[in-house]
Amino acid sequence: MLAEIEEVPEVLRRLIERESDNVKAISSRIKQYAPEFALLAGRGSSDNACIYGQYAFQLIAHLPSASSTGSVYTLYKNPPHISKALVVGVSQSGETDDVCETVKRAKEEGALTVGITNNKESTLYKLAGENAIYMQANKEESVCATKSFTASMAALLMLAYAFADKPLDDGSLLTSVETILKHKEQISALAQRYMLAQNLVILGTGLSYSAANETALKLKEACYINAWGMSSVDFLHGPIAILSHMSPVIIFAPADATLPASLNVIERIKQVGAHVLVISDSEEALKLGDAWFELPPNHDLLYPFSEVTFAQLFAFYLARLRNINPDKPRYLSKVTQVEL
Amino acid sequence: MLAEIEEVPEVLRRLIERESDNVKAISSRIKQYAPEFALLAGRGSSDNACIYGQYAFQLIAHLPSASSTGSVYTLYKNPPHISKALVVGVSQSGETDDVCETVKRAKEEGALTVGITNNKESTLYKLAGENAIYMQANKEESVCATKSFTASMAALLMLAYAFADKPLDDGSLLTSVETILKHKEQISALAQRYMLAQNLVILGTGLSYSAANETALKLKEACYINAWGMSSVDFLHGPIAILSHMSPVIIFAPADATLPASLNVIERIKQVGAHVLVISDSEEALKLGDAWFELPPNHDLLYPFSEVTFAQLFAFYLARLRNINPDKPRYLSKVTQVEL
Repeated sequence: MLAEIEEVPEVLRRLIERESDNVKAISSRIKQYAPEFALLAGRGSSDNACIYGQYAFQLIAHLPSASSTGSVYTLYKNPPHISKALVVGVSQSGETDDVCETVKRAKEEGALTVGITNNKESTLYKLAGENAIYMQANKEESVCATKSFTASMAALLMLAYAFADKPLDDGSLLTSVETILKHKEQISALAQRYMLAQNLVILGTGLSYSAANETALKLKEACYINAWGMSSVDFLHGPIAILSHMSPVIIFAPADATLPASLNVIERIKQVGAHVLVISDSEEALKLGDAWFELPPNHDLLYPFSEVTFAQLFAFYLARLRNINPDKPRYLSKVTQVEL
Repeated sequence: MLAEIEEVPEVLRRLIERESDNVKAISSRIKQYAPEFALLAGRGSSDNACIYGQYAFQLIAHLPSASSTGSVYTLYKNPPHISKALVVGVSQSGETDDVCETVKRAKEEGALTVGITNNKESTLYKLAGENAIYMQANKEESVCATKSFTASMAALLMLAYAFADKPLDDGSLLTSVETILKHKEQISALAQRYMLAQNLVILGTGLSYSAANETALKLKEACYINAWGMSSVDFLHGPIAILSHMSPVIIFAPADATLPASLNVIERIKQVGAHVLVISDSEEALKLGDAWFELPPNHDLLYPFSEVTFAQLFAFYLARLRNINPDKPRYLSKVTQVEL
């Protein structure tokens, strides 16, 4: 898992180098198709990448976007009218049956479909045809997706920028990851404190909501911690009642337009005596934390790449402390099959 | 809280009697407007009602629907192109600033906006103008929304049926709730087993996904249990790793098109030794449970009304066992304000 996290900058460089032309060609077809909205389909980590994509498509390209409700296509077999939709399926293995089935049904309904996968031989890659994007992450051995997750976020970001005819700042994207990789020792030290954690609440809003969910998923898979991601704002609407003295909370609070809301949430959490780890580049936010990790200042769309790299390293070191091999967590395999 | 749960059938009768004409008039305007898709905005319980609405609009009216991403409107102030959208704001108090702000921005963008609220004097009611729907739940004293939650689900269902020119089966809707209210003693007895629960995973897929989330929210607010709702299908994509011997799981598994997927999930959960409470009308599903609660057979769209009534009663009895007054949970108030 660690080696695969460290491979991320190389994967992103390869993705930008080898897929940019393909992404531009796909986005030309999307522009010609002129979708009214986008639906993104993924499960597990890929669902979290889709949540990121949902924000990226909206904020960069102003295309209304949503995570698809898979069961409407696969179980009820009663899909909505999506003949004017862009439907993007994301699956590292390219074999998540639910995602493939959604893309297949969407094609039948007349939607324009794109597939993002790390397997060129896969069902999803073939289904997407000329609109397939290869993640360029090569083989991922660890059951916990890391490099393929970051690559799928990047592929969605590239697609959003290309569709909006805006340039992606490649350099800053790479720096977002590389800067965090230089702080491995600090992250490993921070993980010590959470060795005995049973529960963890991970908060983020806006673009960081996806990172909060992905952090929680990594901590579940790799560390067997009952960790749950949630919108910081929603957390005040009831769930905060679960906190008491020393309940551990992690919050992503980048210094962008979401900062005032995040500061408000941190203050509320502090008032009830919970213990909060603040991950931010805002001095004001960091100094409210019982623990903190400093993010590099960034463009709002790129913060999640730093946040997720932090989360991957944090989960790795914590798994090791908890005597878990994060490459082979119990019960899980690389491709999840669910009866449809 | 109990009195308010018991009031639900009366609230639903009043809602159908007094708001049906209004809902039909609103749906005529929606038809004339011919939206390409719907966005639903709510926080807390109302967000869970919106998730139900998302499925109802899609399955009944084939209108692609999604929960709105509030921060895009309220924090980033950079909304997508939604001039062809139907935007529905749901807020019991009608004062959730995030929801009001989203509806306001949506109006400015040219979207058709509908407001569903339990307060005729509220900002949301006024914003929605002729497209306001009153929940008819009268004053709700308990901080934990129950009757207003069920009323907002019903209002969304009425709107979906009216928009699709299909009839709502009022009688079955009422029976879905009334049948469960007759099983209070059984639910109270079942709650005993969970008196010392620290964590709970609540699963549901499709229409029951909303009920799973709302159950988790009620158990957080009223019982201070670290309870989290999740899509049954997503649960197999990683999160199942948190389960071990006697980890408590509750699953909604109605005997509709989602049953095969639910059975598959229950079997996987049993294999890892977790303890599962099955809520279902399928004999096959019920007999797999370590504990069970039998649902009345129903139309797929109406199961959630039974499921949510079960959840409200279960949370009430469990709160009492845990020495919590569910009408006034710690830290919470009836209207949640978040700095924007």
